Amino acid sequence: MRYPDGIDKKQSQYINYRNRGITLEEEINKTNEYYQSINLAIVHKKPTPIQVTKVDYSTGNTIIKEAYFKTPSTTDYNGIYRGKYIDFEAKETENKTMFPVSNIHYHQIEHIRKIINHGGIAFLIIRFKKLNKCFLLKGEDFITLIDNKKRSIPISFFTEYGHEIKENYNPRLEYLKIIDYVYFGGDFNEICSEKNN
Amino acid sequence: MRYPDGIDKKQSQYINYRNRGITLEEEINKTNEYYQSINLAIVHKKPTPIQVTKVDYSTGNTIIKEAYFKTPSTTDYNGIYRGKYIDFEAKETENKTMFPVSNIHYHQIEHIRKIINHGGIAFLIIRFKKLNKCFLLKGEDFITLIDNKKRSIPISFFTEYGHEIKENYNPRLEYLKIIDYVYFGGDFNEICSEKNN
Repeated sequence: MRYPDGIDKKQSQYINYRNRGITLEEEINKTNEYYQSINLAIVHKKPTPIQVTKVDYSTGNTIIKEAYFKTPSTTDYNGIYRGKYIDFEAKETENKTMFPVSNIHYHQIEHIRKIINHGGIAFLIIRFKKLNKCFLLKGEDFITLIDNKKRSIPISFFTEYGHEIKENYNPRLEYLKIIDYVYFGGDFNEICSEKNN
Repeated sequence: MRYPDGIDKKQSQYINYRNRGITLEEEINKTNEYYQSINLAIVHKKPTPIQVTKVDYSTGNTIIKEAYFKTPSTTDYNGIYRGKYIDFEAKETENKTMFPVSNIHYHQIEHIRKIINHGGIAFLIIRFKKLNKCFLLKGEDFITLIDNKKRSIPISFFTEYGHEIKENYNPRLEYLKIIDYVYFGGDFNEICSEKNN
């Protein structure tokens, strides 16, 4: 299960601080906030799906007393960019040589496939933490690997067919620049100046 | 706060069964499942946002022991239909004469405004439970009311400017038929047969 977003570290007593996913998620969230602030794109992370089984109303406040993380049935992020539906999943790996496909759930893979079939833009953002490299991989390329029964995606595939996302101060992960290049054949800065004029 | 989805009634001990929203949500979810099964549209409800503050790993399972419902920052539903980004909020009201705008959070209103500005299709689905009537209201019309400082939307506005969604067996709430008519000028059944041929 993924680490939930928005957890309050100070209040938490029993949380096992697994790093998995947290930094990349924060960086993407900050990038999306920036994109929204300049009115370039509206992209949000979906909340972590949680099954609530016990709620206490006795104090006057609504407090969830028992709940479980559920496996997500779709990707984590979606929104609208240049009038198009965009949808992606983001994952970090400690692995230095390949990305294990098992990190993406079956329902998420099928969701990516459906979005592409419906004319949406679907992709993965994969960070190799130990290599300090982050790639965007087109959903189409990912689905081709899945259909060819690949269980892992070697780093060489990312360097050859993926698109490295450079990290900056703000936006942190300028992934829409890659989307412009890959899906629109256009330049990010030109679009920014169009929007502002 | 809205009633969370996926709650397990059998396991629950302290849940106060508020009806608010639950039936409409279930019907929309079933409708979306149907649309997905015939490959017409991919629309999902976003999980209810929950702030997790205490997690217990001691039993070997991950059990959330303390958490709180958060106010959603976007609408509940989004997805892709006929290649377009669609986005909506669904609400039920016990009121027989008007829909109180206070049922839609400020961030949700601003989200609807942004989606329209980015070329997406945004709307509301409002059910008047006691009238047994359900309407689709275009986001553009809703935003016009908001900008004119309306605090409530009278039923007469829905009958005049909204679009009644008829209830069927399956799909339960054929809202895409309205979307076809309002946004595409096309017929739902024709599109179905196009998709299937």
